[in-house]
Amino acid sequence: MDVGFIGLGNMGFGIARSLLRAGHTVTVWNRTAAKAEPLGADGATIASTPGEAAKAGIVMSMLADDHAVAEVVFGEGGILAGAPEALHVSMSTISVALAKRMADAHAEAGSALVSAPVFGRPAAAESAKLFVVAAGEGSHLDRAAPLFDAVGQKSFIVGDAPYEANLVKLAGNFMIAGTTEMLAEAMALGEKGGVARAKLLEVLAGTLFGSPIVQNYGGYIRDEAYLPAGFAAPLGLKDLRLVGEAAEELRVPLPLLGIARDHLLETIAIDGEEIDWSALAKSVFRGAGLK
Amino acid sequence: MDVGFIGLGNMGFGIARSLLRAGHTVTVWNRTAAKAEPLGADGATIASTPGEAAKAGIVMSMLADDHAVAEVVFGEGGILAGAPEALHVSMSTISVALAKRMADAHAEAGSALVSAPVFGRPAAAESAKLFVVAAGEGSHLDRAAPLFDAVGQKSFIVGDAPYEANLVKLAGNFMIAGTTEMLAEAMALGEKGGVARAKLLEVLAGTLFGSPIVQNYGGYIRDEAYLPAGFAAPLGLKDLRLVGEAAEELRVPLPLLGIARDHLLETIAIDGEEIDWSALAKSVFRGAGLK
Amino acid sequence: MDVGFIGLGNMGFGIARSLLRAGHTVTVWNRTAAKAEPLGADGATIASTPGEAAKAGIVMSMLADDHAVAEVVFGEGGILAGAPEALHVSMSTISVALAKRMADAHAEAGSALVSAPVFGRPAAAESAKLFVVAAGEGSHLDRAAPLFDAVGQKSFIVGDAPYEANLVKLAGNFMIAGTTEMLAEAMALGEKGGVARAKLLEVLAGTLFGSPIVQNYGGYIRDEAYLPAGFAAPLGLKDLRLVGEAAEELRVPLPLLGIARDHLLETIAIDGEEIDWSALAKSVFRGAGLK
Amino acid sequence: MDVGFIGLGNMGFGIARSLLRAGHTVTVWNRTAAKAEPLGADGATIASTPGEAAKAGIVMSMLADDHAVAEVVFGEGGILAGAPEALHVSMSTISVALAKRMADAHAEAGSALVSAPVFGRPAAAESAKLFVVAAGEGSHLDRAAPLFDAVGQKSFIVGDAPYEANLVKLAGNFMIAGTTEMLAEAMALGEKGGVARAKLLEVLAGTLFGSPIVQNYGGYIRDEAYLPAGFAAPLGLKDLRLVGEAAEELRVPLPLLGIARDHLLETIAIDGEEIDWSALAKSVFRGAGLK
Repeated sequence: MDVGFIGLGNMGFGIARSLLRAGHTVTVWNRTAAKAEPLGADGATIASTPGEAAKAGIVMSMLADDHAVAEVVFGEGGILAGAPEALHVSMSTISVALAKRMADAHAEAGSALVSAPVFGRPAAAESAKLFVVAAGEGSHLDRAAPLFDAVGQKSFIVGDAPYEANLVKLAGNFMIAGTTEMLAEAMALGEKGGVARAKLLEVLAGTLFGSPIVQNYGGYIRDEAYLPAGFAAPLGLKDLRLVGEAAEELRVPLPLLGIARDHLLETIAIDGEEIDWSALAKSVFRGAGLK
Repeated sequence: MDVGFIGLGNMGFGIARSLLRAGHTVTVWNRTAAKAEPLGADGATIASTPGEAAKAGIVMSMLADDHAVAEVVFGEGGILAGAPEALHVSMSTISVALAKRMADAHAEAGSALVSAPVFGRPAAAESAKLFVVAAGEGSHLDRAAPLFDAVGQKSFIVGDAPYEANLVKLAGNFMIAGTTEMLAEAMALGEKGGVARAKLLEVLAGTLFGSPIVQNYGGYIRDEAYLPAGFAAPLGLKDLRLVGEAAEELRVPLPLLGIARDHLLETIAIDGEEIDWSALAKSVFRGAGLK
Repeated sequence: MDVGFIGLGNMGFGIARSLLRAGHTVTVWNRTAAKAEPLGADGATIASTPGEAAKAGIVMSMLADDHAVAEVVFGEGGILAGAPEALHVSMSTISVALAKRMADAHAEAGSALVSAPVFGRPAAAESAKLFVVAAGEGSHLDRAAPLFDAVGQKSFIVGDAPYEANLVKLAGNFMIAGTTEMLAEAMALGEKGGVARAKLLEVLAGTLFGSPIVQNYGGYIRDEAYLPAGFAAPLGLKDLRLVGEAAEELRVPLPLLGIARDHLLETIAIDGEEIDWSALAKSVFRGAGLK
Repeated sequence: MDVGFIGLGNMGFGIARSLLRAGHTVTVWNRTAAKAEPLGADGATIASTPGEAAKAGIVMSMLADDHAVAEVVFGEGGILAGAPEALHVSMSTISVALAKRMADAHAEAGSALVSAPVFGRPAAAESAKLFVVAAGEGSHLDRAAPLFDAVGQKSFIVGDAPYEANLVKLAGNFMIAGTTEMLAEAMALGEKGGVARAKLLEVLAGTLFGSPIVQNYGGYIRDEAYLPAGFAAPLGLKDLRLVGEAAEELRVPLPLLGIARDHLLETIAIDGEEIDWSALAKSVFRGAGLK
């Protein structure tokens, strides 16, 4: 089908490529136009504004933060200005507040929003192995379903209000930070008692605690693989801020969030802004007098 | 082989049965003798003291707490008094401090300790599906290996000092409490934002966070299955106290432990002493103004 | 001296009255004009815009939040539009970020900002017993000094960058919430052990811990005096959010802030939006199974 | 009056001297006899066992920990063995559990316990400026009153069960650690924002937050006066453990205790066992990337 695609960062580029590979007709837009060129070679049309990309009637976006998304939707040459009737499938990790604001604005313009953030990394985007978490009205979800199939290994429908998918995505990012904190505490305890990190992780992952996140983030801690960052600490901090804002708005105390965020702040304060967000584990080890 | 077995509670009974089923010659002892009778019918010999059970030369024990283990080792009619030369394979969840004290005492008596706590529930004990986490000197571990094979699906050797296995077991119990806390926070956030617990758990477990513990404890929270207790809150509190004591002794800050323990205290204070330890999740939901 | 005064809420009204009483010539502005009338009777001139009030050449403002302050400074009819040369003495509890933005804007307009938030309640404002915490360039502070003398019992100069005074004020509000949390925990422990709150507070305040905040907030907890609110919980939550934003920007972990904020969220979730912010103590007592 | 006094450490020595100075007839005992000699020169009789000191009919004790107190009460040559009829006035900071056990044992022996821990340092003990927190039956408190007058500036009666005084003392020590944590967080926030610790402390102590503890512990943090220790970190950790045990027994969550204890563990892990317990503030500053 005809689809617009906005935002060709690490994630977006892979997703756009998966859409092309699945046979869809894709019109792409990126703020830095040079990044779009390789996709042009793959058959994508290159638009000069987000609104132009949205003229396909359905447009997906995958951007860095609330600011970038708001710009693309509400700004000059944006979706609402250029193609107010387009169905917008927003895949970015954004605030619940912005998702609500966008849903209202799209509805007012006579169209609609589907929120469809994803779990997975750039490699999974490129190989169509993402998990898609979608929310929106049934007919809109149906319309977007072939696109989800083109980029993900599995889709979950979590509600009919788009923001619900954003909330689930934020809950997931909270779970990643929380799991990192938990593993770091367990591994610091073990290590100071003479049990090597690698050994403890082997036992935990090999018995009742094994999951992709435990394997991956446990591995980063085991190997102290914090640089170069896969996901830089300040970006993680931004995501945890979004979790905190949603929790504050909904009146939900989240003490584990506070701990993980404080350890993330500590690693940024001490280890710098370039480090991976899993380095919140470094704060845990430092506090125990370990390297 | 000939083996003594001490402690026929829910876990111990299943383990002893698995030993018999594997063809070992088992002499059992339990404080309440009546519980031993069904095993007698299965071919076990019933001893009148722990020391007598230990005369088999190798003796396993699975008891409720430090107090019970110390009684069986150091008390009148105990292992050290009755069979000081026996290799003691201690499977109980006990303190690091007691494990060290026992290792010293067994060594002084001319024998040795192997610590071999397990992950798994009574049903896994009965069906030989436990995970065994063992530590001790190599020759002693070799000697105990056939017994581990008889009761577990897999064994992990984590060190040559017995207490290291106890520390790993405590780290595991900390991970269960921490995972419960984390899931409860995520699910409270979701629920207050309109995403049902069952739906959020389905997404988490179906994407990157799925593990046996996430499935099981997430299920308890989803179903509010806190009564009757599978593992009563005061027992969980006792285990977390052992984690805290080890952390204090080793000088390791564990903020997540503090949070989970406080929520466990809260559920005991409000919901009573009979509730399951996973009900620490109730404290999280209560704090958010949810039922 | 001639001075403008913007914002006649509970605090601002008392401050303006103290200025009049000290013999200053005061031009007031308030969004809801009716509130200004009693001051007119006391000799104040009533302006029709903030910018008009600022024509006095020096203008103080005391408003509810960042939004109201930004409106008065940057909005139509605001200070920058109406009297760009006026020295602005900002007494509101606002974010560090807004203080920095205002300082830049006033400087660019050829004038300056002094931040001068206060500690104290409306009664202290009316009786000129506030504590003034001021920051700004020396000559501007000198110019504002007679105004501080007119409203406060003591002034503290904390730096030459205005935002520093705002940061100190936020640190103070953090201290209030932290003291409330600490007292509530101590009193819940005592009460569950049979020591009445009143008795424990008497001992604490009468020995080494007595301070105005311990006396006042300890008294609220002792008497469960949470309604009607002196300072409503959502306003307290807003202030703690500003503390958290400053801490995040400065990369400073504040775990006690997390705890107090979570308990404040809990009391809002359970007890409603009308309750006093000291009711975060209710969450502490509730968690202990106490009323 | 005739009184025995057991325990001549820094605190006990000063208290015994104050008793002598007030004209009481004092029989002292100390484990290391040499420490008693200067008091002999001041007119004290030196006993050879705790039980002998208790023959005065009323005996005060001031010792380091539960272990030392239990030894003096229950051990060979102890109070119960040597003078079972003596009223025991226990001034040590001990666990609630030991206070209960002692109260029972003294009652069974036909006598009684009064708990009377104190707030204040060695200098205050020597100059009779302590605060005494007492609990016990009225007639026993009346009997001990002249002794309290001899050593303290003020006495508080907090209950008729002796352990209640111990609980209040533990709550007070929790307040010291909590205040240290709170001040450190506020001062780290200020310092990273450009406001020196000394300046912030001056404002806090000079406005609404000033108390002896804020002045003293704030001063330690301001001056980084952590060595030599006035009260070594491991002793502080022991006291916080007693608070935690009481809280666990009484089912009271104390999240602030968890934070302060973790920061104390961190400073011990990194800065060593010799440092003052106020150095938990170092952990707070370290976490913010400050020295």
